[in-house]
Amino acid sequence: MFVLGIDPGLSRCGYGYVERTPGGVRAVAAGVLTTDADLAVPRRLADLQAELRSLLDELGPDVVAVERVLFSANARTAMGVAQAAGVAMAEASSRGIDVVEYSPNEVKHAICGFGSADKAQVERMVQTLLRIESPLRPVDAADAVALALCHLAHEPLRRRAAIATTTPGAGA
Amino acid sequence: MFVLGIDPGLSRCGYGYVERTPGGVRAVAAGVLTTDADLAVPRRLADLQAELRSLLDELGPDVVAVERVLFSANARTAMGVAQAAGVAMAEASSRGIDVVEYSPNEVKHAICGFGSADKAQVERMVQTLLRIESPLRPVDAADAVALALCHLAHEPLRRRAAIATTTPGAGA
Repeated sequence: MFVLGIDPGLSRCGYGYVERTPGGVRAVAAGVLTTDADLAVPRRLADLQAELRSLLDELGPDVVAVERVLFSANARTAMGVAQAAGVAMAEASSRGIDVVEYSPNEVKHAICGFGSADKAQVERMVQTLLRIESPLRPVDAADAVALALCHLAHEPLRRRAAIATTTPGAGA
Repeated sequence: MFVLGIDPGLSRCGYGYVERTPGGVRAVAAGVLTTDADLAVPRRLADLQAELRSLLDELGPDVVAVERVLFSANARTAMGVAQAAGVAMAEASSRGIDVVEYSPNEVKHAICGFGSADKAQVERMVQTLLRIESPLRPVDAADAVALALCHLAHEPLRRRAAIATTTPGAGA
């Protein structure tokens, strides 16, 4: 199974493409999509859309895992993040790809075992899970890989839940 | 000049297509795009994207005027509005259409002459400007027409500002 994690943002949009193998997990690709801060927001969203389209065409993931935008943080930044997340979710879903959102706390809990883990702990766990020698950089790419790994951790439970709700008589 | 106003929303996305004629303004089309609230957000964004694509292909506006999302209101609703706005702006801008954002206060000021006008006053002014016998319904469509009319009010000034910044020696 191939999962593309997306840490949405208008200035920096992280992505991490992870494969579940019989022996564990493997990061196939990771990086950051950026847009020119000197351009108007609509143009930047269109540029991000074009880059995401290329990425989805090239990689063809089974699932896209996107960070759920929360509005407790800086409202100005949150708006750009929400707009970028909207573009990413629409592009993936319109291709028939399953799109799942995870909150930052769900990611921390899935990767580190507790929702209050700090960023450095998440990065070290990502490094350990991928069996790489130094922390994955840039940080946005590591965050996106963490989202993909979070989905792989949740996926068996999601599948069982889906079977329970679609099997006739189940849960009755 | 043809302007498409878009009042973004995930549940209800208003649109209003307005033409400036020698004698004034004319609403060519107006309505609301809706998505199924029972579906997941990514699916709804993809459905909205498909409807917006059809609308842009069919109408071919010169300019798209989108309501600027503010986060002072309900944060849950604001997230869906920002995601829908992101999809709309990316779709229009990727077609090379000029996209302009206006805040609710800018719309009220342009239509009614003061930024503290209430919704009923804006609707009555839209009705007067379009010379129609009853208020335009649904309200989301009337709000989108108001956005398009706001752009037409701002447009001469925007054009003069663009000339001033691109003419050699101007403003020196």
